[in-house]
Amino acid sequence: MNMHFNTSAIIRKKRDGKKLSAKEVGYLISEYTKGNIPDYQISAFLMASYLQGLDPKETTYLMRSMMDSGVILDLSGIKSPRVDKHSTGGVGDKVSLILAPLLATCGVCVPMISGRGLGHTGGTLDKLESIPGFRTDLTIKEFKRQLKEIGVAMIGQTTELAPADKKIYALRDVTATVNSIPLIAASIMCKKLAEDLDGLVLDVKFGNGAFMQEYRRAKQLAQTMVQIGRRSGVKTVAVMTSMDDPLGMNVGNSLEAIEAIESLKGKGPEDLMEVTLTLGAEMLKLAKVRGGIDLLQERIESGAALSKFRKMIECQGGDSRVIEDYSYLPLPKYTIDLMAKRTGYVSGIDCFSIGILLIDLGGGRKRKEDSIDASCGFKIHKKTGDHVNRGTCLAQVCSDDRSKAQRIADRLKQAFSIQSKPIRQKRIVREVLK
Amino acid sequence: MNMHFNTSAIIRKKRDGKKLSAKEVGYLISEYTKGNIPDYQISAFLMASYLQGLDPKETTYLMRSMMDSGVILDLSGIKSPRVDKHSTGGVGDKVSLILAPLLATCGVCVPMISGRGLGHTGGTLDKLESIPGFRTDLTIKEFKRQLKEIGVAMIGQTTELAPADKKIYALRDVTATVNSIPLIAASIMCKKLAEDLDGLVLDVKFGNGAFMQEYRRAKQLAQTMVQIGRRSGVKTVAVMTSMDDPLGMNVGNSLEAIEAIESLKGKGPEDLMEVTLTLGAEMLKLAKVRGGIDLLQERIESGAALSKFRKMIECQGGDSRVIEDYSYLPLPKYTIDLMAKRTGYVSGIDCFSIGILLIDLGGGRKRKEDSIDASCGFKIHKKTGDHVNRGTCLAQVCSDDRSKAQRIADRLKQAFSIQSKPIRQKRIVREVLK
Repeated sequence: MNMHFNTSAIIRKKRDGKKLSAKEVGYLISEYTKGNIPDYQISAFLMASYLQGLDPKETTYLMRSMMDSGVILDLSGIKSPRVDKHSTGGVGDKVSLILAPLLATCGVCVPMISGRGLGHTGGTLDKLESIPGFRTDLTIKEFKRQLKEIGVAMIGQTTELAPADKKIYALRDVTATVNSIPLIAASIMCKKLAEDLDGLVLDVKFGNGAFMQEYRRAKQLAQTMVQIGRRSGVKTVAVMTSMDDPLGMNVGNSLEAIEAIESLKGKGPEDLMEVTLTLGAEMLKLAKVRGGIDLLQERIESGAALSKFRKMIECQGGDSRVIEDYSYLPLPKYTIDLMAKRTGYVSGIDCFSIGILLIDLGGGRKRKEDSIDASCGFKIHKKTGDHVNRGTCLAQVCSDDRSKAQRIADRLKQAFSIQSKPIRQKRIVREVLK
Repeated sequence: MNMHFNTSAIIRKKRDGKKLSAKEVGYLISEYTKGNIPDYQISAFLMASYLQGLDPKETTYLMRSMMDSGVILDLSGIKSPRVDKHSTGGVGDKVSLILAPLLATCGVCVPMISGRGLGHTGGTLDKLESIPGFRTDLTIKEFKRQLKEIGVAMIGQTTELAPADKKIYALRDVTATVNSIPLIAASIMCKKLAEDLDGLVLDVKFGNGAFMQEYRRAKQLAQTMVQIGRRSGVKTVAVMTSMDDPLGMNVGNSLEAIEAIESLKGKGPEDLMEVTLTLGAEMLKLAKVRGGIDLLQERIESGAALSKFRKMIECQGGDSRVIEDYSYLPLPKYTIDLMAKRTGYVSGIDCFSIGILLIDLGGGRKRKEDSIDASCGFKIHKKTGDHVNRGTCLAQVCSDDRSKAQRIADRLKQAFSIQSKPIRQKRIVREVLK
């Protein structure tokens, strides 16, 4: 009874737009995690929070309570500065695969815990797992040891970290309370701040392929996360980057692994490298390592970054021969070319649709439990602003299933808009928020 | 999956302040009643409805879906017009016990389904059950037969009527979504309109002893219910009455039964009779029976109303000797007088506190499953505006437990405010809304 009473009183307070204390938020989250508060009360609380909002203080309380519901890593044994990067998710975003080993070559420890593909966006874990044998399920002990040895490890969300977040996210998913800036910010930050970081760089996406398409809302999300980080004593920087075009050329799991390796070999496409190096430079600053973009480029040119990636693959049980020979990766049998029907300029790419088409092709999940085909995907040859002639190859669809590839190619056409007038290309990195 | 999807989409729509269709509301309620939609989705929907509101159309859809979740009475076999009355609840409100038999003597059929005490307010069923043997759990069949025979029957909510309302009310109770005008209106009306009525008169209370204390909100509730009634083809009238003072003199179950009987004998206190006759006259109008208040008074003076009450008690298994001899009712052993400490005018009575004190005395429920002591209660001798001398008896506390009565009497003092200046008494019946 008493618990119901307290819980109702807290829900009522938020319903009426009042501010909750750390104690009140903490009570809700810890009792919910223990199973002492039922789902139906938390879903009412989530809807009240969605509609009445949570201020930066309350959002920080929520983040901290969710973080405290599980294990918090203790990486104090590691001497080098610990800095991680998180992206809010996009299409073709393989930045983490390049950035983590690259930063580790600069004396920065990168304890990266990543997610799987969600909705139309890909996931770092799925891309890593396209490398045969690569284990993303290291134990916390293995994770720490590897960080000490080589300064980088990339694993998946464990059940030990922030279990409250997992439980709450599942509830938000079915109660129309996902798309709330404070709830999203707290959910992202509770997992990242459990990594015992010195600094965190956020890649906050906007544009048609991002979760927060609108720049204004994406920036609010970024500012909220930067505030949470600061209030929690972790230096946090957010870089606003456009998701109006797929990032880089390849979309699909093994295709993106290949593009990441190419980038580590110094052959990365311009847009992908701009985002990677901008984020990397911010990570260096937070780690108080001098050198900036020049240092990062030098580490790529010298082969140090690629060598670190190889070491990481080997440490995590993967087959590092993939680095020299892509045929060790799952590769699609067929490639269908998609040609431009008219001459002109690409005026826009429906990035969200490309993400959805990848799922339909088999490279992403409709439901959590679905398995994925790591080999399939797209190669995007033309981006917004590019000039094309009738018959120019805009993109390729790669799959083991020829007729499916053809069907998807027909739909992929719709994702490209072509107009006669030239179009001004916008900068991909729009703003850095500190 | 599909059901989750539909449900989420409907929640999202209401979350965003959009209007729901009859189909959407109907889907939520019927699937929830069947157990196909979980509590946590409905609680999110309720919170979204609380904060974004439901317009009169949506509220009517909700009412109708809840009504349709159960049995709807078929009283078409009864020739006389069927009119009922509902009160939003107050302290000392025994109007139904007088009104139902009174109207039945005027050729109006009164198929009254009532509730138990809720929070600080008393319940008609508890008052009736203070009469030894009185059954409020008639079957629908018995209920109909009695209505045909004597034109009046008073029973409790059956599980067959509007089960969705019961399920939703329990959920609202623990998710801080009780106090919403459309949700309250739909909940009240779905049960009343399942009675197959020609007309309905609502007694909507305001003031410190009402659920909706503020006049403006109580009036909104009244208007919403009148609209739902009209949209559903049932003529509905709302009478706004003050709950700033307890209604009548007695508060407590058997004490209120006695006061109702006294009123049927023509000895009812002025305020109680004003409310009773006003509501009764509106009921007559809806039933298209001429005569108004004069007819009602004649029926009391002639003894017809009392005789109808006796018949109803006998039909429902009660001991009708209570009418002549109150000692057949449970009566308290001890009476403690509460004296005025100063000379002056009663400037206000904290009616809400009196309701709560009745619970503490044992005459109401803290939890649904609590049993109650029907004998205990209060006699309120002085009301707002009355002049009192130091030592005048303001009220009496009646209980079988002397020391408890004394403790409660000490607290009851706080409920009376006395000032030197005279105070203008306000009209108890404030407005009639059609």
